[in-house]
Amino acid sequence: MIYLDSAATTLQKPPEVLRAMRTAFSSFGGAGRGSHQASMNAANAIYDLRETACEMFGASSPEQVILTHNATHALNIAIKGLAKPGGHVLVSGFEHNAVMRPLKALESQNIRYTVVKTPLFDPEESLKNFWKMLSGDVSLVICTHASNVFGTVMPVAELSKMCRDRGVPMIIDASQTAGILPINMPELHGAVLCMPGHKALYGPQGTGLLILPKGMSLPPLIEGGTGSNSLQFDMPEELPDALEAGTLNAWGAIGLLEGMRFARARQKEIGLHERALMTELLGLLAGIRTVKCYSHPKHQIGVLSMTFGGIDVEQAASGLADAEIAVRAGLQCAALAHMTAGTYPAGTLRVSLSAFSTTGEIRTFVRRLKEILSKM
Amino acid sequence: MIYLDSAATTLQKPPEVLRAMRTAFSSFGGAGRGSHQASMNAANAIYDLRETACEMFGASSPEQVILTHNATHALNIAIKGLAKPGGHVLVSGFEHNAVMRPLKALESQNIRYTVVKTPLFDPEESLKNFWKMLSGDVSLVICTHASNVFGTVMPVAELSKMCRDRGVPMIIDASQTAGILPINMPELHGAVLCMPGHKALYGPQGTGLLILPKGMSLPPLIEGGTGSNSLQFDMPEELPDALEAGTLNAWGAIGLLEGMRFARARQKEIGLHERALMTELLGLLAGIRTVKCYSHPKHQIGVLSMTFGGIDVEQAASGLADAEIAVRAGLQCAALAHMTAGTYPAGTLRVSLSAFSTTGEIRTFVRRLKEILSKM
Repeated sequence: MIYLDSAATTLQKPPEVLRAMRTAFSSFGGAGRGSHQASMNAANAIYDLRETACEMFGASSPEQVILTHNATHALNIAIKGLAKPGGHVLVSGFEHNAVMRPLKALESQNIRYTVVKTPLFDPEESLKNFWKMLSGDVSLVICTHASNVFGTVMPVAELSKMCRDRGVPMIIDASQTAGILPINMPELHGAVLCMPGHKALYGPQGTGLLILPKGMSLPPLIEGGTGSNSLQFDMPEELPDALEAGTLNAWGAIGLLEGMRFARARQKEIGLHERALMTELLGLLAGIRTVKCYSHPKHQIGVLSMTFGGIDVEQAASGLADAEIAVRAGLQCAALAHMTAGTYPAGTLRVSLSAFSTTGEIRTFVRRLKEILSKM
Repeated sequence: MIYLDSAATTLQKPPEVLRAMRTAFSSFGGAGRGSHQASMNAANAIYDLRETACEMFGASSPEQVILTHNATHALNIAIKGLAKPGGHVLVSGFEHNAVMRPLKALESQNIRYTVVKTPLFDPEESLKNFWKMLSGDVSLVICTHASNVFGTVMPVAELSKMCRDRGVPMIIDASQTAGILPINMPELHGAVLCMPGHKALYGPQGTGLLILPKGMSLPPLIEGGTGSNSLQFDMPEELPDALEAGTLNAWGAIGLLEGMRFARARQKEIGLHERALMTELLGLLAGIRTVKCYSHPKHQIGVLSMTFGGIDVEQAASGLADAEIAVRAGLQCAALAHMTAGTYPAGTLRVSLSAFSTTGEIRTFVRRLKEILSKM
């Protein structure tokens, strides 16, 4: 199979990930449950993960790194913890449903949101518009680091500085960029980071991270046993326990640890690799008359959306699936991004790359796409 | 290592679990994300898991089986979905912090709880006391199927009938019994079931199930992308999507599927095995003067708590850990159970069994315990 759907989840993982998970199998007890070796094995793996996350993302201390189920879980903790009743939330025009659906649910608590005008591949204009909207009543800003639909990179560092200057908390959805673009908490001026483990960090499914800036804590979204302060029915206040109820996925954590080590050691190289493939892909697609690509030479990661005039993108994707080529068509769980870019409601066909994507795969994809489009 | 902490998580898993997870590695995309084979592989595994859960627990349809992160996650969805503001919740005296901590948090929404008097190993008396308390203002009943501290089995079937007759919803925490005791939804009169995947279902960490009775739905606790109804910022109302936001842990699901198959095929045999080990264990412990066991010939699963007169249980567990024997001492994330049984706040030393426990392990444990206690 040619897998070009890495923005959903990376399919190929470094072999170390599986190898690490094999050690978890039959050696990991419940992390933080008991003082025996099996429990310690699990706890140590999770602690190593937190430390590696500190090194990779510049988090202030391991306790500020929260292990979650996925990025959506992390975003829900962050959004519900920071959006105060009666508050006003600003979001970019490229937010995923993992941001929009929690916000929609919060409307019942008198929390409203406004979508800031953020034109595709125009960080300067986006920043300007955020600046205009950052008035007194704004209580939270949420911005994706890069769109899962168009790969457009948002100016999160500059935006976080604006937010800090205005005293407004900010959440960055790094679902598409963690592992791809350099991310350093101190340069993000107190913003909260949310990311999945199973995309460009090459970890297993069932993992995500919430990284809180120094000194910040948030109220729990899920309460339960933590292996600590068991006497009390109140959740412990200390991080990470306050936000990690129930048995943690230590099997996933050790897999993610190895995935992160892989991504971290090759981050620049992977970025260049994906950039080169993107250039090749765009060059080849330019040769197909019906294809319109949404691309930018600079402000884009390895995620490319395209449309085909009036031709149905879902049908094209289905033809590609028949040819064992995996892409994603439609709205990609981010209707807002399509509204912003003018591709709503028909959506786009999206190609997204990983460290394991190859030139040969790109060429085969374009050849098959051409054949399919010519028959439609 | 001799692992006797299966009530926290089972350490040994059937080899099929790892084998299945190995197939997920490099063949699973995001379940419900795209129509390509990798996405279908993941979705099919999760669907098979739902179907197997239906067969094993008598759930009405696969859609009523929700894949969660752990039992705590399942319990939080159930408790927060069913406990209405201003309501009154009854709980048994053996609830885990995964029940008590969400309830404590709900006090801020004017939801109060009462602990029903449920003496250790006395299901008749417990039922009688629930019956007395099931008055007009009770809006929810929560009862563990078996205590994680004492293994005491609660009369959940009878209690669920009472609740149905009174029109009160009920939640059963099957964390210690799923895979051990027969559980059949139709015999539980509309109760909601919550369970982890990583205990006696022998699945990986990072998995749990919430099984809703026929016709019941609950509001989401976490909102996000579902791969369905992407046009809408509201969560889809259909199950299971309404309660499964973000990328699902399909890697975990296929592991859990194999674990469940293992447990289901051998459920009776495992029950007898653990019963026999318990009898042996109790017989051997009877020979140590300082040991007090909390046991019952009938109403108990393979979870045994003990105390040693004035001797510190944590210190004894630590001595056992040094001898590479894993048990759990203290409050086991369930202070309430200790309050009920009179072992609060010092706690107990808990031994808990699995299908992989052996007579030899039990004998070694007792021998080492005796040595340790004699030196304390």
